[in-house]
Amino acid sequence: MSSVFPARPVSALDRLATPCLVLERGRLARNLARMAATLAIRRVGFRPHLKTAKSADIARLAAPPPEGALTVSTLREADYFAHHGWNDLFYAVGLGPGKLGQVGALLRRGVRLLTLVDHVESAQALHDFARREELPFRALIEIDCGDRRGGVPPQSDELLAIARALGAGFAGVATHGGQSYAARDRAGFAAAAQAEADALRLAAARLQAAGFPSQILSLGSSPTALADVDLTGITEVRAGVYMFWDCYQAGIGACELGDLALSVLAEVIGRPAARPHEFLIDAGAFALSKDRSTAALGDGRDVGYGLVCDLDGEVLPGLRVEKVWQEHGLVVSPIPLPAERFRPGDRVRILPNHACPTSAAHDRYFVVNGTREVLAEWTRVNGW
Amino acid sequence: MSSVFPARPVSALDRLATPCLVLERGRLARNLARMAATLAIRRVGFRPHLKTAKSADIARLAAPPPEGALTVSTLREADYFAHHGWNDLFYAVGLGPGKLGQVGALLRRGVRLLTLVDHVESAQALHDFARREELPFRALIEIDCGDRRGGVPPQSDELLAIARALGAGFAGVATHGGQSYAARDRAGFAAAAQAEADALRLAAARLQAAGFPSQILSLGSSPTALADVDLTGITEVRAGVYMFWDCYQAGIGACELGDLALSVLAEVIGRPAARPHEFLIDAGAFALSKDRSTAALGDGRDVGYGLVCDLDGEVLPGLRVEKVWQEHGLVVSPIPLPAERFRPGDRVRILPNHACPTSAAHDRYFVVNGTREVLAEWTRVNGW
Repeated sequence: MSSVFPARPVSALDRLATPCLVLERGRLARNLARMAATLAIRRVGFRPHLKTAKSADIARLAAPPPEGALTVSTLREADYFAHHGWNDLFYAVGLGPGKLGQVGALLRRGVRLLTLVDHVESAQALHDFARREELPFRALIEIDCGDRRGGVPPQSDELLAIARALGAGFAGVATHGGQSYAARDRAGFAAAAQAEADALRLAAARLQAAGFPSQILSLGSSPTALADVDLTGITEVRAGVYMFWDCYQAGIGACELGDLALSVLAEVIGRPAARPHEFLIDAGAFALSKDRSTAALGDGRDVGYGLVCDLDGEVLPGLRVEKVWQEHGLVVSPIPLPAERFRPGDRVRILPNHACPTSAAHDRYFVVNGTREVLAEWTRVNGW
Repeated sequence: MSSVFPARPVSALDRLATPCLVLERGRLARNLARMAATLAIRRVGFRPHLKTAKSADIARLAAPPPEGALTVSTLREADYFAHHGWNDLFYAVGLGPGKLGQVGALLRRGVRLLTLVDHVESAQALHDFARREELPFRALIEIDCGDRRGGVPPQSDELLAIARALGAGFAGVATHGGQSYAARDRAGFAAAAQAEADALRLAAARLQAAGFPSQILSLGSSPTALADVDLTGITEVRAGVYMFWDCYQAGIGACELGDLALSVLAEVIGRPAARPHEFLIDAGAFALSKDRSTAALGDGRDVGYGLVCDLDGEVLPGLRVEKVWQEHGLVVSPIPLPAERFRPGDRVRILPNHACPTSAAHDRYFVVNGTREVLAEWTRVNGW
């Protein structure tokens, strides 16, 4: 990885303009290695989801091009990663007919873009578009394994109708056990992982019997990807937030707080004299997001809008971002704050509730490795 | 305004890539005109807040350069608007010492940048920096009129200490009656507006008596800016979200639903056969934000993650975005949906809960005026 880092540090955490994203390189590497090792031991393919990281610099560590296979959440990500050398991309959001023009542009450039459909009309539109444009395409059918977001049930009649509409473009099945986010322990993650695998195998068996053999059986979420269930027949696993983890994932037991690689660097901008338990920082709703996922976890694991760390990344016990306005965050302490700390100009780092929306507000990561030295800037691809 | 619009439309709402922001030009113009007329009649200055719109194209309609005075929420906005010809800018977030380098860069370019301080240490740091760099500066002291965010109480000792630290850079006082967002009717807005004006007049009188005359008394929020209270002595009003309004502002009675100028264009990407009350759209937590401000308004005015309109902007009664994932939104209807509507590829427009964070996820507006024709693209300045 040495080529990524300049010989001299780019800057330091006490000089960066705030608010901004800080990424701990060592923790990122450990999270990537743990997932890769787990899946390698289980002899299943891996297609990391870049919906959280949205960065070629990070994707290069997780699944380097040109062989690396990636999952993306927008067609802008697909375009960006194709531009940066990846050729095997899965756009894992149900494809609406309105996006066929963008899909066609990628296919025409030779990108091996897998798409996802869960409705016979979408499948027919994709098939007809590809035939008219004389473009090869490959699509997976989305299976609902209990998440009740997108997808068709594996035992449904629609499953076969969609495969027939796709015709030669049919490539397999995919599912996402999003219900794992509602689990609170390893047994819960394993149950969701089992539901993912069972749903895909049932769908693939029915499709096979109808003359549609699946090349790809793709499943995953960060909590389920690390669960120990039988993956016989499954060809690949997807996961995204595991690269950074966050307070919500720590709260449900999918990781430890010490695994969190992402934080928001902020400056103390207010210290009200009459409110000795509080200070204001320049990271508010925009820099942290208004995601309150941990509210569902109850007292003790609810971090408000984020846990507060010192500039070196050490968690400051009891301090959390209690309230946010657009550009202000209010940090509240359970005990009166010492007079000499958290003065205007002091800096803190906030561990976010949910890493995905927090990251999405920022255009780059400032990469550190256990010290205050900034080793690199890695840019992101946001929006659509 | 004719120069802004090309002779032929840019595109049409049924061809744009989704999700994206749609801005109704006629409603925007009406919202701008109503605010400008209200404040002109009351003979008070106006410094529109660009924290919501973040666009030079919109600021040009609200307060054209070079005379127009703007309020901004980030120093990146200040830099952007200065680049686009404005010279009178107020950065209305408490200034931390860590931002002095950025402030200095703007002052050195000749930008008349007003800053805001509410702590004697921040004031001293600003004063010392400006003296060392030989830069003129003007700062307002932030007054807390009951919002309990930033600011010092008008009767506090700190008020005078901050003015002394600023010295010749002291230019006046500013406040924001954010408690108006918790009001639910015109009487509540008027009470917050009265609190703003009273707090500023008290602070200014005490400062005047101590030898610090205020040139600027700046107050405002969208609900209070339209309230009819005595503004004697107040030099300028600030407001931002009034340009677009949103479901929260309509819910508290600050505007009507018909005033909402901003929506998110989305495509139907899923229509689960077994769930006849629901469909999925490609606008989720990222395109709409996770802001749930209207949850505080209770049944009847809680819009979930947004109200659903047809492609022409007509509200579809009872339909709302009930749940969001990163790139999916789940629309739920109180009655089973007709089979022929909301098919994959159909398009809807979502009126957001809170216009500010929703806008912040997007890099541009597609401007329409009561039809599906897109007349212009107006870009935004996001981030820090």
